[in-house]
Amino acid sequence: MLSKSQIGFIKSLHQKKYRKEHGIFIIEGIKSIIEFIPSDYQIHSVYFQPQYQSLLPELPANIKLFEVTSAELEKISTLQAPQGILALVNIPETTTIDRTVLRNNFSLVLDGIQDPGNLGTIIRTADWFGFKHVICSSNTVEVYNPKTVQATMGSLCRVNVSYQDLAGLLTDISMPVFGAMLNGSSLYETQWGTEGLVILGNEGQGVSPEIVNLIDRPVTIPRVGQAESLNVAVSAAIFCADISRNLNK
Amino acid sequence: MLSKSQIGFIKSLHQKKYRKEHGIFIIEGIKSIIEFIPSDYQIHSVYFQPQYQSLLPELPANIKLFEVTSAELEKISTLQAPQGILALVNIPETTTIDRTVLRNNFSLVLDGIQDPGNLGTIIRTADWFGFKHVICSSNTVEVYNPKTVQATMGSLCRVNVSYQDLAGLLTDISMPVFGAMLNGSSLYETQWGTEGLVILGNEGQGVSPEIVNLIDRPVTIPRVGQAESLNVAVSAAIFCADISRNLNK
Repeated sequence: MLSKSQIGFIKSLHQKKYRKEHGIFIIEGIKSIIEFIPSDYQIHSVYFQPQYQSLLPELPANIKLFEVTSAELEKISTLQAPQGILALVNIPETTTIDRTVLRNNFSLVLDGIQDPGNLGTIIRTADWFGFKHVICSSNTVEVYNPKTVQATMGSLCRVNVSYQDLAGLLTDISMPVFGAMLNGSSLYETQWGTEGLVILGNEGQGVSPEIVNLIDRPVTIPRVGQAESLNVAVSAAIFCADISRNLNK
Repeated sequence: MLSKSQIGFIKSLHQKKYRKEHGIFIIEGIKSIIEFIPSDYQIHSVYFQPQYQSLLPELPANIKLFEVTSAELEKISTLQAPQGILALVNIPETTTIDRTVLRNNFSLVLDGIQDPGNLGTIIRTADWFGFKHVICSSNTVEVYNPKTVQATMGSLCRVNVSYQDLAGLLTDISMPVFGAMLNGSSLYETQWGTEGLVILGNEGQGVSPEIVNLIDRPVTIPRVGQAESLNVAVSAAIFCADISRNLNK
């Protein structure tokens, strides 16, 4: 049984302010937890309904385990339909991406993405296509938002997500900087080469003016119909698929 | 000023049961409303804060207009941040797709999509790539769900969305039936030809067993990394982009 203070603590982690203060975020569902256990993330504690205990692999002794009732899980879960098991995970220390790890790879650079689901979906897509890094502007939504974590479907533990000053990163970088724009050259004719960054902008405003100037190669997904724009997670995926097709042909 | 009964009526339309009963759904935001006015949809009434009146084009006399306060709009809006204007739209009569309109085109077929945002994003993507029809299984989420309508970003008024028995549609259809599957041939090597249906399955379960048997050509988006699957709206978009590239090269 959980104490009132435990419940209050976990509920506080639904909010960004307290995630930041305590350096802890929430993951939910047995699949996700099984993927996080062997990853570089440190699990802090696990809260499970009895029927999930047998599904858990052996855990290091420092991870605290708590059996909970379904009523308790409902209180601490961020989901409308809790998935029987929830874990707290330590937020890793912030790292700045060393530009050298980006060489000979493609990485996604997110400029002001606001929707947590979009960010999570982009991380999941990056993982599918083997992109190791997603670099976010400091005004991009927080990756430990429960909706983002959920939308990554476990991919968060395999994709390196960092936040940094994009202008600083992009200035004088010695690799191609592609950008998803409405007025670029056709995606289908893009010569991707073997490395690069792909900038994706905010849902409403697109890439910010400061960053637009640092894009070498604006690229557009050719439009046939009449929609004004594509969802940003959709655009990211179409870019990833095209780059992946090119790298693996 | 709105009466209590008007407010109650519009709030009832947040629920599927009452949308169905009254044959009316809600759209929000000036952009969306401007796109719906000249479409085949019939606008029932418009509720606007004073500053939005000048943005409205001239409307047929049978459309009722109501000036509302921001407090009233908050009550009737389905959004956390209402956009200053909202309209009620008549749900068109259900039509079954005549197979002949599908000839010489590509259309998306959705088998049990559950997330309203995914459905809306798929409709928006279909519109971008000029796909005219999205055909949904009867257990797919309702297209007039406010989250779906919002995610279409106005594309709902340009894409024909119908619900029908998929097995009936697909049996003996004289065009290729492609399906997004985890164990098909590579997307990048697909010979699309000039017409076809593309089946996309449920978020968790994929394409239902009944429908899998009706797919001629299972197609897979090649995976490089480790994510177990892609978001269904992302998969749909990657398929649409590949088909569009092929049709327009």
